[in-house]
Amino acid sequence: MEHPERYFPMWEELTAGERETLLDSATYRRVKAGTILHSGKEDCVGLFLIVSGQLRVYIMSQEGREITLYRLFERDICLFSASCIFTAQFDIMITAETDTELWVIPAPVYKKLAEKSAILANFTNTLMADRFSDVMWLFDQILFKSFDKRLAGFLLEESIVEGGGPVRMTHEKLAAHLGSAREVVTRMLRYFQNVGLVRLSRGEIELTDKKSLETLAR
Amino acid sequence: MEHPERYFPMWEELTAGERETLLDSATYRRVKAGTILHSGKEDCVGLFLIVSGQLRVYIMSQEGREITLYRLFERDICLFSASCIFTAQFDIMITAETDTELWVIPAPVYKKLAEKSAILANFTNTLMADRFSDVMWLFDQILFKSFDKRLAGFLLEESIVEGGGPVRMTHEKLAAHLGSAREVVTRMLRYFQNVGLVRLSRGEIELTDKKSLETLAR
Repeated sequence: MEHPERYFPMWEELTAGERETLLDSATYRRVKAGTILHSGKEDCVGLFLIVSGQLRVYIMSQEGREITLYRLFERDICLFSASCIFTAQFDIMITAETDTELWVIPAPVYKKLAEKSAILANFTNTLMADRFSDVMWLFDQILFKSFDKRLAGFLLEESIVEGGGPVRMTHEKLAAHLGSAREVVTRMLRYFQNVGLVRLSRGEIELTDKKSLETLAR
Repeated sequence: MEHPERYFPMWEELTAGERETLLDSATYRRVKAGTILHSGKEDCVGLFLIVSGQLRVYIMSQEGREITLYRLFERDICLFSASCIFTAQFDIMITAETDTELWVIPAPVYKKLAEKSAILANFTNTLMADRFSDVMWLFDQILFKSFDKRLAGFLLEESIVEGGGPVRMTHEKLAAHLGSAREVVTRMLRYFQNVGLVRLSRGEIELTDKKSLETLAR
């Protein structure tokens, strides 16, 4: 089992007191698949450190339509579940997709420590900037370029050409077909893999959820 | 003229050395309306402290379509122009809409200071979380609820009823008409005002850019 300290790359730079506070405050939780861990903007439990299992972070419309922002796996940290650390509000949902074990560091404890520790505050900054960048990129692609739709459609067509098997095509070539750039294809494929639509391996793209890809492509 | 220290609410809590470094590194810039201050993800000039004028922060598609994220006015701080402070990349544009004067604090200087200062690092955190929250909310409303479209359409219709004059209706009532919540109406109206579509005053909503509202409503 991963202990809380493993999640903080700069653990050794924290003071003994800070480390003790983090360890003492961390509680271990086991949740069943389907458990809602964060709903809307009111919840503010704390920092989640994922030990095993799988969490899904998504936004939801009033009509129940959803967009998955990302999934969290073993060794990931979830910041949204502690959004009251900041004054800002985030209207997001987090659910466990499989039975999941996690450490929870209470938001007030983390907040108080980060107020005094430049190391912790900068760590939070990096986590948040990475997520912010991912979300901006995703929305940009979805809103403007419908690139998720187009890639899903193209992969389905190619899979038919391959007799229903995995798509064997470099990201470079996919980009050329779709009038995009290799980096964009790679990043969107990683997003597809993260949300369970495909599995990537050397030179191959396996379509693991054709039904959802079809919905997306429509 | 606002001096750099006015932009940092926690100025007094910084050390004398930190304050000196910030003041010494800040350069004063005057830019003409139309100047592009940040383009795509490569640029990383520094923190912008707006003295006067108006900057627009937006994302742009390959086809040239744009979504304004927000505008920055006197006393605002722009963090995106210093995104290399973090490892993350943000593919955004910033242009001056009017002649603008600003202080620029070079990104490497700010980064180095924030690495040692919990106060500065937490200040960055708050700025980023606020922007992140705004952007998430905006995308949520646009992607899922097309609420921008619906509100624009409704305001135009109401303005016709009022003989082309300002719309006289409480946010509460607007929300009831649109099947939404008062907070959502208020926040979207503030966004509309920020991007120059309306002007809000006591009990009135003046439509200052009907053409753009019509494009949006379509």
